Amino acid sequence: MDRNQVTQKIVTAKVSKKMTWAQIAERIGQSKEWTTAAMLGQMTLTAKQAATAQELFELTDEETLWLQIVPYKGSLPTPVPTDPLIYRWYEIVSVYGSTIKELIHEEFGDGIMSAIDFKMDIQRQADPNGDRVNVMLSGKFLPYKTY
Amino acid sequence: MDRNQVTQKIVTAKVSKKMTWAQIAERIGQSKEWTTAAMLGQMTLTAKQAATAQELFELTDEETLWLQIVPYKGSLPTPVPTDPLIYRWYEIVSVYGSTIKELIHEEFGDGIMSAIDFKMDIQRQADPNGDRVNVMLSGKFLPYKTY
Amino acid sequence: MDRNQVTQKIVTAKVSKKMTWAQIAERIGQSKEWTTAAMLGQMTLTAKQAATAQELFELTDEETLWLQIVPYKGSLPTPVPTDPLIYRWYEIVSVYGSTIKELIHEEFGDGIMSAIDFKMDIQRQADPNGDRVNVMLSGKFLPYKTY
Amino acid sequence: MDRNQVTQKIVTAKVSKKMTWAQIAERIGQSKEWTTAAMLGQMTLTAKQAATAQELFELTDEETLWLQIVPYKGSLPTPVPTDPLIYRWYEIVSVYGSTIKELIHEEFGDGIMSAIDFKMDIQRQADPNGDRVNVMLSGKFLPYKTY
Amino acid sequence: MDRNQVTQKIVTAKVSKKMTWAQIAERIGQSKEWTTAAMLGQMTLTAKQAATAQELFELTDEETLWLQIVPYKGSLPTPVPTDPLIYRWYEIVSVYGSTIKELIHEEFGDGIMSAIDFKMDIQRQADPNGDRVNVMLSGKFLPYKTY
Amino acid sequence: MDRNQVTQKIVTAKVSKKMTWAQIAERIGQSKEWTTAAMLGQMTLTAKQAATAQELFELTDEETLWLQIVPYKGSLPTPVPTDPLIYRWYEIVSVYGSTIKELIHEEFGDGIMSAIDFKMDIQRQADPNGDRVNVMLSGKFLPYKTY
Amino acid sequence: MDRNQVTQKIVTAKVSKKMTWAQIAERIGQSKEWTTAAMLGQMTLTAKQAATAQELFELTDEETLWLQIVPYKGSLPTPVPTDPLIYRWYEIVSVYGSTIKELIHEEFGDGIMSAIDFKMDIQRQADPNGDRVNVMLSGKFLPYKTY
Amino acid sequence: MDRNQVTQKIVTAKVSKKMTWAQIAERIGQSKEWTTAAMLGQMTLTAKQAATAQELFELTDEETLWLQIVPYKGSLPTPVPTDPLIYRWYEIVSVYGSTIKELIHEEFGDGIMSAIDFKMDIQRQADPNGDRVNVMLSGKFLPYKTY
Amino acid sequence: MDRNQVTQKIVTAKVSKKMTWAQIAERIGQSKEWTTAAMLGQMTLTAKQAATAQELFELTDEETLWLQIVPYKGSLPTPVPTDPLIYRWYEIVSVYGSTIKELIHEEFGDGIMSAIDFKMDIQRQADPNGDRVNVMLSGKFLPYKTY
Amino acid sequence: MDRNQVTQKIVTAKVSKKMTWAQIAERIGQSKEWTTAAMLGQMTLTAKQAATAQELFELTDEETLWLQIVPYKGSLPTPVPTDPLIYRWYEIVSVYGSTIKELIHEEFGDGIMSAIDFKMDIQRQADPNGDRVNVMLSGKFLPYKTY
Repeated sequence: MDRNQVTQKIVTAKVSKKMTWAQIAERIGQSKEWTTAAMLGQMTLTAKQAATAQELFELTDEETLWLQIVPYKGSLPTPVPTDPLIYRWYEIVSVYGSTIKELIHEEFGDGIMSAIDFKMDIQRQADPNGDRVNVMLSGKFLPYKTY
Repeated sequence: MDRNQVTQKIVTAKVSKKMTWAQIAERIGQSKEWTTAAMLGQMTLTAKQAATAQELFELTDEETLWLQIVPYKGSLPTPVPTDPLIYRWYEIVSVYGSTIKELIHEEFGDGIMSAIDFKMDIQRQADPNGDRVNVMLSGKFLPYKTY
Repeated sequence: MDRNQVTQKIVTAKVSKKMTWAQIAERIGQSKEWTTAAMLGQMTLTAKQAATAQELFELTDEETLWLQIVPYKGSLPTPVPTDPLIYRWYEIVSVYGSTIKELIHEEFGDGIMSAIDFKMDIQRQADPNGDRVNVMLSGKFLPYKTY
Repeated sequence: MDRNQVTQKIVTAKVSKKMTWAQIAERIGQSKEWTTAAMLGQMTLTAKQAATAQELFELTDEETLWLQIVPYKGSLPTPVPTDPLIYRWYEIVSVYGSTIKELIHEEFGDGIMSAIDFKMDIQRQADPNGDRVNVMLSGKFLPYKTY
Repeated sequence: MDRNQVTQKIVTAKVSKKMTWAQIAERIGQSKEWTTAAMLGQMTLTAKQAATAQELFELTDEETLWLQIVPYKGSLPTPVPTDPLIYRWYEIVSVYGSTIKELIHEEFGDGIMSAIDFKMDIQRQADPNGDRVNVMLSGKFLPYKTY
Repeated sequence: MDRNQVTQKIVTAKVSKKMTWAQIAERIGQSKEWTTAAMLGQMTLTAKQAATAQELFELTDEETLWLQIVPYKGSLPTPVPTDPLIYRWYEIVSVYGSTIKELIHEEFGDGIMSAIDFKMDIQRQADPNGDRVNVMLSGKFLPYKTY
Repeated sequence: MDRNQVTQKIVTAKVSKKMTWAQIAERIGQSKEWTTAAMLGQMTLTAKQAATAQELFELTDEETLWLQIVPYKGSLPTPVPTDPLIYRWYEIVSVYGSTIKELIHEEFGDGIMSAIDFKMDIQRQADPNGDRVNVMLSGKFLPYKTY
Repeated sequence: MDRNQVTQKIVTAKVSKKMTWAQIAERIGQSKEWTTAAMLGQMTLTAKQAATAQELFELTDEETLWLQIVPYKGSLPTPVPTDPLIYRWYEIVSVYGSTIKELIHEEFGDGIMSAIDFKMDIQRQADPNGDRVNVMLSGKFLPYKTY
Repeated sequence: MDRNQVTQKIVTAKVSKKMTWAQIAERIGQSKEWTTAAMLGQMTLTAKQAATAQELFELTDEETLWLQIVPYKGSLPTPVPTDPLIYRWYEIVSVYGSTIKELIHEEFGDGIMSAIDFKMDIQRQADPNGDRVNVMLSGKFLPYKTY
Repeated sequence: MDRNQVTQKIVTAKVSKKMTWAQIAERIGQSKEWTTAAMLGQMTLTAKQAATAQELFELTDEETLWLQIVPYKGSLPTPVPTDPLIYRWYEIVSVYGSTIKELIHEEFGDGIMSAIDFKMDIQRQADPNGDRVNVMLSGKFLPYKTY
């Protein structure tokens, strides 16, 4: 058994029980963004969060233990994603990557925007020309230092 | 001659003249995000914008023409980026890609967040634990339709 | 269980029952192009369409639910396809890609032809020199905008 | 010297002289699709077509000879294209490739749609919801035969 | 079930029953080259040919149906083959590919040698210095046309 | 200087002087297949053959020396060729590779068909349905031995 | 069933029965190098050798037949091997490859060292500074010929 | 300037001056194997060896300095080599890699054969069936240790 | 059965029994670094160590035997790792690799730092700005020698 | 002009002037590890550090400016490095990567060891069995947080 099998079981249970990620997040007690990532095998749950997941998805005790182990992360099957929605994000990195780099360095100097001390918020914005997906990414700036 | 050579010349001129992207954007009259992408060879300028760029970077007439031609886009030298700042964005796509997909589909149904009808805003947020990079991405939702 | 297993089951059932995609499309009530893509795991069905598919292919309730979940798209096993028919399409992109780009930009300016707000129609054209495959692709033009 | 250098020179001359591909095609006397592909180094010109190109782009005699030599074809720098417009075509092959294969085989049996005995027509279709790019692809069906 | 499983079953049956491809071809009524390709999952059988195969390899009715469906072609597990015999063919393409291209174009002009309207004949030629493998490949020339 | 530069110079000279490979081969005194491969940088010339090439293409003495040095072979820019004519050969290896392997082993046992003790002959075959390219490949069979 | 499964079974049996490759080779009657390669699925056994293997590893009749079929060769899971021992050999090819090429050509002219008419002998050499692995590779030189 | 340019200059000088690697090695005072690797940019020369090379190849003082700097090693342009002679060595690693691993481990236990404390000797062996290339590889065994 | 399956079983047993690697290492009698690598299938155990592991993880006799066989090493599923923690190490190699090479060569001359005669120690260092991971790597320097 | 050209010039000047990295670091006033990385184009210099570098390497004013611009990082030409010294580090990541991950997570929980708030110290340790390279890596632990 590994974490992938637990993820697979959770996804199947979610389909069968017709739950939404927002409902699951409310039960887990975290944002829908973090909760979905955790259920898809990218984050580590506390014992309490895992117990809630056990109840929601009818997991065994061993499966519940796996949710509390740090997983091997990475949720995509290929380096360049084939799914159109996820590809558009890869395209943003490809087309705007050098722009993002230039502007963060201009404002902060040499360093990176953390993908660990990081949070994300996905919202729908109504728009008469077609609703928009608004995503706020927030990461701590970490400077390179000399030594 | 091609667009890459014009980009190379603009970047070198920017270094020599010690301009910032924000100053250049003010002269061009667009946001710093769009302007930087355009100067880095990812966007197409109008004749008026190109004339401003010509003056700023002392371009020839032919180089100025190239800025008005739609470029072959893509600003990174490898499919998986090696630069740590840009890689963190690739990592976000790798780790959170399936989460983003699930949450957008839960809210909007099948479709994508456009990377064309798209804008981006990069801001510094002061924080006593270390300042944060906040990035707002906004893309129109485009639904798949049956036919 | 995942969508691939449902696709596999549908394809096997289609072979056993000797149905054509055109017949299936008529039952689903959409074009043969959209219906085939949906049955091959690339599109999301409505509850009503899924119920028809359940009947046609003797699916379980859970399999029928999976048809209504947005799938991870991409129908080919390798970045460069090995099947000769599909490769010829890849070759068209390889040989004519820069031509298509130039001509669309000449007519519409900077932007893309949507692969989401998109439809396709495949027809046989009788021809004494050998019948022809005629394919009409229609995608909305989406312009890049400044901001 | 090789064909790429001639292509580079033609593209630069086209920018300097502000010609469109449609105008060039009219002078060459072929469709804008074929002409653009030829000028971008994918097709072979006759002596007469090459002479017209020589005059249009002020080519040397040796450059004009190169236009009459069959080129090494393939117009993209990477197997998976990074330019968003061309990527959308690759995405169509990825998402709809298995669909196209199934429908052509259902209609014609085993074989391929030729990418050699092939033509393409790109048209603008006005549409109140946003103009559309319509592309007609026509290729002779070539059947596999037993022997 | 898919075609690969039928191929796997045929290969195993051939081993168990100690048949040669030449014997199988004689029963199917086609050349040994075409028959072997078909049995290895690269070609589509007629109902009559499939019935013969069913008898030879003790296939089920469903397996027999699969032989009559156009397969997803491509018989090698990697883009560059690792098997020494097959690699030698890849090496011929790598070393002599540009030569083949030059000589066919010199004789026929721009176009290709078809891999669809194609046949192959493999013969042993006795030679005192060591017997030779002689392979005759024959493909229709398909010219590019202007339009 | 390296062999690629000599190849480039030979190809350009051939274009300027409007020679055919067949004419060059006659002068060199070998088959058109071997001669073309040699001129494209895949084979090593004798001093006498190199002297003929020097005269034909107006090479310098150093360039002439390079023709007599064993080159680093491989004439294609990518593992999977993009040029349609050469790709068709790669497709033959992909689709028929396992067939070729089976049939040679059935006839000869374990071993390979040599790509070194190898020759090739390309001929045009007139055919009312369209002329055919006939290629005869002949390679010595080399058996694996136990020891 | 395929050859990989037979290999897997042989390796497991070897572990359970605590045999060495040298002992197995003695029973098979060939060198330990050839025998190990054969047992790992890279060589073809005669009926007599296969019968010995059947007895040693308690194979079924069908498994024993598979040992007499020419296998699809290639024993590594990735193009660049990850195992440190095997990688060192890949490194030798990477670092010394051009040296080996130069020296063989200097001695023999254009051609290759055969990997088919080839044998290998691995010996331990005691050395006070640490024992050494000595490997003798011997391959017939095969010259390229003109034609 | 970098080491590759010095290598390029040495190789060109060797061609012009018609020296052999054996002659160069004699002058440098090392084996022909080590000397060739060093001249091809894979090894570091002492001041004395570099001075000899300077004289042999008419190098500048700066070029001579580069020969004494440890180079970035790796002499092949692609992960899987295209040159037939070098590929045969890659094939040996691919086909016999797992065999070599098993036999070294059987004799020595867990560890590697060093590619650093390593030497190589290439000899011609006359043989009435065709001369053979004999290569002796000798590397120190380095055991993994527990700690 | 192979070593991966034993690794999988050990990891699952560790989760179920809530053991830490430090506790397991104490039982095995080696450092936590070596022990973890061994349990994850990268090292070879002695009979005594394997017996301890058998007891700890309730392994069968055959599984215990596998622990004493030298494994095919390499613990990551892709050449560029997707897991953020492991990627940071790959990034260190990418960004600092040329620095490490320069400094080791400056101190030691041409050669390598062994990854075989190698040990590693991972420690937590308390720090008011956030605790630090300190890793000491120690490898024997192995010089290239002339011969 | 870009940063790579400045790096190239610095490396060449260092060779000509026979400086060591340790001497350069002393002049720059930072550790030899950071200084070497900076000179090899991986770090950003302050105005004062750049002025020192200008003097040391006789750089132009524009080259000196480039040293103060954040570079596109990544110092290796291929994803899997070919140089033996650097490869050994890649091998450590490959073989011990999962071990490092497990032990850091066991001590710290889910998160990463930073490669930005990071320092490195390379030391020679005398050892009668052969001197050792000791490398201390120290990175801040960054925990994943829920939100």
